[in-house]
Amino acid sequence: RLGAGLALALASGLALALAARRGRPRPVREVLFFPSAPSCTEELLAEPGGVRGPCSCPLPRRDCSLSRLLRRLLSARSSLELCVFAFSSPQLGRAVLLLHRRGVRVRVVTDAQYMALHGSQIGRLRLAGIPVRHDQERGFMHHKFAIVDRRMLITGSLNWTTEAIQSNRENVMVVEDEEYVKLFLEEFEKIWEEYNPSNYTFF
Amino acid sequence: RLGAGLALALASGLALALAARRGRPRPVREVLFFPSAPSCTEELLAEPGGVRGPCSCPLPRRDCSLSRLLRRLLSARSSLELCVFAFSSPQLGRAVLLLHRRGVRVRVVTDAQYMALHGSQIGRLRLAGIPVRHDQERGFMHHKFAIVDRRMLITGSLNWTTEAIQSNRENVMVVEDEEYVKLFLEEFEKIWEEYNPSNYTFF
Repeated sequence: RLGAGLALALASGLALALAARRGRPRPVREVLFFPSAPSCTEELLAEPGGVRGPCSCPLPRRDCSLSRLLRRLLSARSSLELCVFAFSSPQLGRAVLLLHRRGVRVRVVTDAQYMALHGSQIGRLRLAGIPVRHDQERGFMHHKFAIVDRRMLITGSLNWTTEAIQSNRENVMVVEDEEYVKLFLEEFEKIWEEYNPSNYTFF
Repeated sequence: RLGAGLALALASGLALALAARRGRPRPVREVLFFPSAPSCTEELLAEPGGVRGPCSCPLPRRDCSLSRLLRRLLSARSSLELCVFAFSSPQLGRAVLLLHRRGVRVRVVTDAQYMALHGSQIGRLRLAGIPVRHDQERGFMHHKFAIVDRRMLITGSLNWTTEAIQSNRENVMVVEDEEYVKLFLEEFEKIWEEYNPSNYTFF
């Protein structure tokens, strides 16, 4: 057992040393708790080449759970898989649209009952050309996770609504971890195929 | 940087080697996806010294996400902190009662609006003598996490309801990880104090 432990230790040691040598930062391991007090996120969400000056709203520009979540999402460069039960936060909606415009491949899975609710961002995303799929089930598509660049998993209790962000007790974990990303990506692809519109039935 | 990486590698190597030498299993890292098909969990939930024979129900006794979740919870020997929005699953309710009877120190935080709903297990837990605290807020206490023996974190999208277990797309992460356990324990203690009944206001 000691031999195996040492072998594992050497292997992980080598990986760490190589990562350090290449100047790679340590993998992200972050937990965000909500509620997050209202704050201005205009700077984070500014369009590239936008002509607007600094935002004149009275909200503080502070580091908070929402701004951290936005930063993590906006770090996407190639892909974003989104699997969210309720999605009505305008700020999170703008972040996803921004990524889509930057050429990030965005795919969204959501819940059929909730996507039509007042303030839902799903219609905006679809109008912009983002592929969205939803269930046809009695149960809820109740996941709330995102995968950034097939590298970082964002998951927790938080639905993407202003209500939840500002009023609820919620948690979101942000982890760069191959094992977890792989499992959640597999879950996403499985649901993505099951919710393929060619499988829909109409009554 | 190479020096720091190597130092870290040596430290983690030493920890791994020591763990291996003591025969400690690797820390749990598990993701459970739902829905979980109906199954019989009587064997898992049998009272110690109970006189009932094997269950005669027609449900299969299979390894599934619910049985795995129950096993993780039932592994508690000293403490269970529970922070759950909706709690109406009779099986999960029985598991928590069983732990309480075994002398595990159980504390429960829940949402005021949801704890009175039909089928809620909260009343049963209180009657058995388990301390329960709830919010007095407009927002929801929307967490769904548990901490076993201050060692293992169980968290995700799953509310503790039969509906969610059997019909919804849900995820639960089970992690033995000091860093995450510490953050969620701090969140639990913070909420536990804020929801202290001596702070309640009555209108």
